[in-house]
This record gives sequence, structure tokens and C-alpha cells, in this order.
Amino acid sequence: MTTTQTDTAWSELRARFQELADLGGTLSLMGWDQSTYLPAGAAAGRSRQVALLSRLRHERATDPTYGHLLDRLEGSADLSPIQARMVAVARKKFEEATRFPTEFVAAWSGHGGESYSAWTAARPANDFRRMVPYLEKSLDFSLQAASYFPEFADPMDYFINESDEGMTAAQVSDVFAALRVALVPMVDAVTGAEAPRTDFLARTYPGSEQLKFGEAVIRDYGYDFTRGRQDLTHHPFMTRLGGHDIRITTRVKENDPSEALYSTLHEAGHAMYEQGVAEELLGTPLGGGASAGVHESQSRLWENLVGRSRAFWAAYFGKFRDTFPEQLADVTEGEMHRAVNMVARSLIRTDADELTYNLHVITRYELERELLAGRLAVRDLADAWHAAYEQNLGMRAPSDVNGALQDVHWYFGSIGGAFQGYTLGNVLSAQFYTAAEAANPGLSGDIERADFSRLHGWLRENVYAHGGRYTPNELVQRATGQAMTVEPYLKYLREKYAELYGVKFS
Amino acid sequence: MTTTQTDTAWSELRARFQELADLGGTLSLMGWDQSTYLPAGAAAGRSRQVALLSRLRHERATDPTYGHLLDRLEGSADLSPIQARMVAVARKKFEEATRFPTEFVAAWSGHGGESYSAWTAARPANDFRRMVPYLEKSLDFSLQAASYFPEFADPMDYFINESDEGMTAAQVSDVFAALRVALVPMVDAVTGAEAPRTDFLARTYPGSEQLKFGEAVIRDYGYDFTRGRQDLTHHPFMTRLGGHDIRITTRVKENDPSEALYSTLHEAGHAMYEQGVAEELLGTPLGGGASAGVHESQSRLWENLVGRSRAFWAAYFGKFRDTFPEQLADVTEGEMHRAVNMVARSLIRTDADELTYNLHVITRYELERELLAGRLAVRDLADAWHAAYEQNLGMRAPSDVNGALQDVHWYFGSIGGAFQGYTLGNVLSAQFYTAAEAANPGLSGDIERADFSRLHGWLRENVYAHGGRYTPNELVQRATGQAMTVEPYLKYLREKYAELYGVKFS
Repeated sequence: MTTTQTDTAWSELRARFQELADLGGTLSLMGWDQSTYLPAGAAAGRSRQVALLSRLRHERATDPTYGHLLDRLEGSADLSPIQARMVAVARKKFEEATRFPTEFVAAWSGHGGESYSAWTAARPANDFRRMVPYLEKSLDFSLQAASYFPEFADPMDYFINESDEGMTAAQVSDVFAALRVALVPMVDAVTGAEAPRTDFLARTYPGSEQLKFGEAVIRDYGYDFTRGRQDLTHHPFMTRLGGHDIRITTRVKENDPSEALYSTLHEAGHAMYEQGVAEELLGTPLGGGASAGVHESQSRLWENLVGRSRAFWAAYFGKFRDTFPEQLADVTEGEMHRAVNMVARSLIRTDADELTYNLHVITRYELERELLAGRLAVRDLADAWHAAYEQNLGMRAPSDVNGALQDVHWYFGSIGGAFQGYTLGNVLSAQFYTAAEAANPGLSGDIERADFSRLHGWLRENVYAHGGRYTPNELVQRATGQAMTVEPYLKYLREKYAELYGVKFS
Repeated sequence: MTTTQTDTAWSELRARFQELADLGGTLSLMGWDQSTYLPAGAAAGRSRQVALLSRLRHERATDPTYGHLLDRLEGSADLSPIQARMVAVARKKFEEATRFPTEFVAAWSGHGGESYSAWTAARPANDFRRMVPYLEKSLDFSLQAASYFPEFADPMDYFINESDEGMTAAQVSDVFAALRVALVPMVDAVTGAEAPRTDFLARTYPGSEQLKFGEAVIRDYGYDFTRGRQDLTHHPFMTRLGGHDIRITTRVKENDPSEALYSTLHEAGHAMYEQGVAEELLGTPLGGGASAGVHESQSRLWENLVGRSRAFWAAYFGKFRDTFPEQLADVTEGEMHRAVNMVARSLIRTDADELTYNLHVITRYELERELLAGRLAVRDLADAWHAAYEQNLGMRAPSDVNGALQDVHWYFGSIGGAFQGYTLGNVLSAQFYTAAEAANPGLSGDIERADFSRLHGWLRENVYAHGGRYTPNELVQRATGQAMTVEPYLKYLREKYAELYGVKFS
């Protein structure tokens, strides 16, 4: 192609990128409304509208003319490195959207619906055996899906690459192995020590005051309310309705103010990432976060490394007690800090604390790997679950309800890659934070003064602004000077929990 | 076509109807969000998304294959009367969407933007002369638009038919002439009598309590909150996001509780109409109200004929005073009733009361007719405005700001048909109400008990359920047993204001 031809093709491609982004934003609006304000009687009509828009978007995302444009521009010497990266990411998405035969997609999606529906009945009935044929079919579909991408030798690699481009099962397994080895004795030590006081969290905290407090904190963090907003929902989430429309949602428990607060801080972490993507990347395949794992690292960083730190409560306890003077009359700053960091073994992943959460995730990840590798049969999954919990968390669920039937993820028809992102996020949160600290000495002093400008600025410059410009591994290397490593995270956990619980870790 | 061919073509057409309705509902969601919750910084991105969806919808609405389907089915003997009506209405919309050449639409729309932009500067500067060339061009465009529909001899007929199918300028002018003749002396008599007390409306009424009160009233009316909701906005509106998702918006003035209340009652009137459309018509060209005028009749009926009646305040004054005991400590039910029915001459249409409002509308309608007929030159419009106000309302604006520059309607690039619907709605509101009363003796007794079931039931059966099944004239004839007539409205106004102001009308 001549340079002029490249320019013309690029303009056309750029317009198509924008169209896909705008249809995506429209679908996000529909989803946001569904989760916040949609009247109950309107659900069926909305589903039909969403299906229509999804179809229109899919038609454009898989349009052969779009594929030809990508063909023509791929490898063109006239493209800037950013343009070349846009084409590469668009190509990855195009392949993901087009390689499956239409009948395969229809059959898989049909199976997913049936499986989900069966699970909603089987779980309350504690009937894992009823789900075995569904899970077997899900495993077959998943393996077949991976087989359309023969460039991945291990099916798990295919699934990990879907959410964290360029990461591999080998890499993730290494990180998780090191993490488990360190976590199991830490949990033993911490749960053996005296538990913190948490009684005051169960007092009554009016919802509207909770919301105001959380919103004041994330305004301090740097969440931009002129390009976003917070609303109430059942299951909190962050959503991108447009390049400058990044909304979050939360939920309030009147008898546990940590619920709304930490959900708000978590979703604001996701949202500040999206709000920080460079303008030139918006409306392109690079106009969002780098990957699921990197995204989770930003939510976890603001929720846990900042929001559950001693420095955070040094900054906010006074304000929190001013907001709830009666509820906190007999509570100290230190008690507050310890209460929101309580560690306890439990059977339910979504209720787990910062320390034990990863063991829930690692357990599921390893079971997925075994299933996909054919080393574990579906019919043995429930028993394998119990054995793994015994080993990793020292607990055994009394039934499969909180065992292999616990999470919905496997029952939508697909097995593989559903969980590892949560723990990759935790690992990376500490690696990024440690790098930010190294570049900004005295960062926790900033936090004590509720000054987040240096931290937010470093993250914006080194993580947020890049959007999807780099793969997760590239981004981590550039921002922190080293490949993904579990060490900063383990150091953070050891120091924090040794101090909080007065224990020593070997 | 064979019956089977008709069946196949019908199925395809029905699916296209649903798609157009669903894209329309999606656009309504985007508009609703824009007017309620959209963050300020997201406006530009949302406009781009709306433009994309509008284009996708337009492509489908003007798709030649869709036109051919309509061709094939038009006049088919296999269609039921309702199906035939759906095809006829779809054909009307298809013609409206396709007869204008693309370049004409682009030029007209471009001109509309420039005109609006010029108006936003010319109005505060009281510079009507600056708008003359824009209005001349708008008039040319409007006449040219009408010329693409040569089946209408009078351009005004084309514009009226756009919003109230089958009505004509001759018919509307007759109604308006009779109305003006009656209204002018009524306004003279009422404004000559002692004005009611309104001081207490200017006290402070907390917004959240106002909203709760209004929502309790419309729940009594029969507005279904499981298929709708109310949110705050700047300029209240009703919108259909889906067949079972009919939302309303309102605004609150802390120092005038009548603002939120009557806006809520008005929009709920529109919304109950949409909520009452028969299920079988949803997702088709008949799935909304019959016309702009009929729609306005339903909002006015619930706002004015019910909501400003003596019976209404007999039902609700106690509750209203319980809600605002301090503000209303020295106010009687009768004073409340009179205050919300205060009549005063004014220069601003949107601030006008029930009685004088129509004179504002008639003035504009007649000026539009003169302009379109070439009997009035644009350069003389500002003077003609003042003369007409002198004649109809006995007042003269000190400048053109509240004269010919007052309303935005003419400055979007189109002249004709923008106003008459408001007054047609008033006229029809009384005609429908009178018919409902004849069929349900003692209806105002129901209202005194806050029992709206018979009134709502009659309207649902005789108006709402039919959706777009009939033209406005047909619907009025069927529901009330006679053609549109101004008599019930004049009778209602005479009785109401004679009693309220203690005057006699000749």
C-alpha cells in the first residue's frame, strides 16, 4: 500500500473502532440501567433490546470487510507503534469473535443457559451428581473452544490469554505455588492469635451517611465525578458507558459499614484506571485497562493496600467517627483498623478476607487445570474440592452447596480461566504499590494526610494512561522494572499481619 | 400472494417492527439517561453514541427491503383489520422517512443547527432582525418539505398530519376560532374579579416530601410503578423505553409545590396512556398513543380536569396538609383549590394558566398559518406577534425577547405544526372526560374518595388500549360518539371558572 492508501484505510479502521466502542458503551448503559433503575416489569423487553444490540455489535465485530482492513494494515510500515498495537489487539478480538463456527457458538450458548438453569435447582438441593453431565459437556465445549486456537498448546493458556494476554498457565501456576506455600502457614499463625474486636461494625449505620462518606473518600482518591457517578445495585460493579463516562455502583448494609465503603473503594480503583486512559486511546481497542489481572490490581490497591492501611485510618477515622459519633463512641482508630482486617477461615470465597481469599482462588484454579488436562474427572470434582479445601484452608464443607456447587462461574457452560485474575490482581497490586513507593518516598505519610496525588499521579503515568498499549507482562516490566513476582505481595502481607496480630512469620 | 406467502411476509414484517421499536426504546434510554443521570463530562460522547444509534435505526426504517415488504402486504385480503392498519401506519412512517432526498435532509438539519445557535445569541440581545434570514430559510425548507407530500394541498395540513394523522388546518382553525371567541371575554371577566390567595404556595416545601406526595397520588391514579419510575430532570417529560418501561420525570421547586405536583400528574397522564396500550400492539407501529393531540388530552385530563378539580382537593387536601402541616396551618381546602387555578394574563406561554394558555397557542398557530400561506412576511413577524397578543391577550411584550423570539420551536429550522397539539389536547381532554362521566354517573364522587378505577378503566378501554389503531378523529368519534368539538371544553371552563371566581359568562 502507498502511504495515502494506508491513511485512507486507517481512517476507515479508526471509524470502525469508534463504532464498536460506541455500541459497546450503549450496551453498558443498558446493563447499568438493568442493574440500577430498570422497573421489574421491563426485564423481558430489555433483554430483547440487549440481544438486538449485541447482534448488531457482533455483526460489525465480525464483518469480513473489517477483517480485510485489518489484513491490509497488519505489518504496514506506515503505522506508528501505537497504531500497530491497535491493529494487533483488534486482530486478537476479531479472531476471538470469528474463529468459532456459528453452530458451535449457538450450541455452546444454548448449553450454558441449560446448565445455569439446572444449577439454580441443583445447588439448593445439594445435588452435585445432577450437574455432572452438564459439567462434562461444559468441559467438552471448553476444550473444543480452545482447539480452535491451536497456537496455544495448553487449553488453560488459551483461557488465560483471553483475560490476560500473553500470560501462561506455567507462569500463573508458578506464582500461585509460591503464594500457597507462604500463605498456608501465615493463615495458621494469624487464626491462632487473638481475634480483633468487630462488635461495633454490627451497629446501625444509616445508609445515606455511609454513601456520603465513601464518596468523599474516593473524591480524595481522585475519582472524577464529572466523568462518572455512583448508584446503588445488588452486586457492585464498574462500567464504561463511554470514554468519559465511567460509573460505579455499590450496595449498603446498615449493619456493616465496611460493605459499602470497601465496595466503593474497590470499584473506584477500577474506575480511576479507566478514567486515566490517555485521550488518544479512547474509542480504540486500547481504550480500556490492559487486562483482567491488571484491572483487579488497581481495585485491590485502592481497596486494600490503601483503604485497609493504618495510614488510611489515621487520615479518616476522625471523619468517620464524626459521621457516626454514637456508633463509634467506644471505638479507637486502632480497633477500626484491626476490625476491617480481620482474618478468619471460611468456606465461602466472596466472604473471605484479604489473606485467605487467595487460597479460595488458587484451589479453584488448580481444579480447573486438572479438569482441562484430563487428570481429574468431572464426577470426582466434588470430592477433589473437599480434599483441596482440607489441604489449603484446613476446612471441609458439610455438603457440596458450599463446595463444588458454590460459584456460578463453572455453571455457565465454560470451564477455565474464570478465577486466576482475582489473585493475579492481588499479587500485582503490591508490586505496583511497591514501585510507586520506591519512586515516591514517604508515600504512607501522604496517605495519613489524605493526599493521594503522588500515588494517583504515578499510577496514571505508569499504568492508567497506557490503556491496552502493552500486554500485562510488558506493562508490569515497564512500570516496576521486573517481571510479575509474588515477593512484594508476600512482604506486604507478612509485615501487615505480623504487626496487626502480633505474630512472627518464619 | 398465497396465504402462506402472506404469513411468511407478515412474520418478517413483524420482526422488523419489533426491531425498530427496540432501537427506538434504546434511543429513549439514552435520552432518558442524558436528562437524568449523565455526568457532565460525558455529553459529547453520548451525542456521538446517539447519532450512531439514530443512523442504525434510520437505515432500518428506510431499508428498501422493508419498503418492498410493505408493498407486498398493502391491500392483502389475508390481513386482519389490525394488521392492515399496522401496514398503513408503517407506510406513513416509511414515506415520511424516505421521501426527502438525502441532501435535503442534510441541508435542512444543518440549517436547523445554525438557526438554533444564532437564536441562542439573538434572543438575549433582543435582535429579531438577525433571525429574519434564518426564519426565511426555515420557511423555505418547511414549504419544500411539504411539497414532497403533494397529497396535502395546504402545507399546514402536511404538518398537522405529521402529529395528528387525518386532522386538517381547516378543522383545527374552526375549533380554534370558536375557542378564541369564547375565551377572550372569559379571561376579561375572570381577571377583572378578585384574585385568589396564593401567598402560601411560596413557603418552603421540602423536595423529598413533595415527590413522595406526588407519587402517592399517581399510584392512586393507576400509574404502574412496576412498569415505570419517576426521576428528576430539568424539563419534565414522559418516555417509552420499552413496551413495559414507561418512565416519567419531574422537577421540584422548594418554593412552589404546585410545580412538581402538576408536572407529575401531567406526565403520569401521558404515561398511563402508554401503559394502557394493548399487549398485542406493543412492538408495532400501533404500540403508542394515537397522536400528539390525543396524548396531550390524557396528560391534561389527569393534570387539570382531575388534578385541579374541587373533588381532587376534597380527596387530597387533608393528606397534603398532613405532609406540610406548618406550611398549610392557615390554609383551607378551598383556598388550595383556588390557588392552583389562579388565572392571570402573562406574556410567557409556559407560565400561563389553564385558561389563558390556549390564547398563547392559538396566536402562534395562526401566525404559522399566515407565514406558510405567504400572507405574512417573516420580516413582519415580530410586529404581527405584538398585534396578535394585543388582540388575544390584551398585552404587549416590551421587546421581542418575550415576543417572536420567545419559544425555541421555530428556531430549530422548521415552521408549522409545532403548537396546535397543546390546545387540541385541552379541547379533547374535556370531550373524553365528559364521555367518561356520561358512562359513569357520579364520577366526581369517586374522585372525592380518591377512587380512580372507573375513570381509569373507561379511558383504558376506550382510549389507551387502542394505541394507534385509529386516527385521532376516528378515536374521538368512537369514544365520545361525536366528532371533535369544543363544546365540552367550553362548558367545563365556564362552570369551573364561574364558580371559582364568582363571575357570570354570557
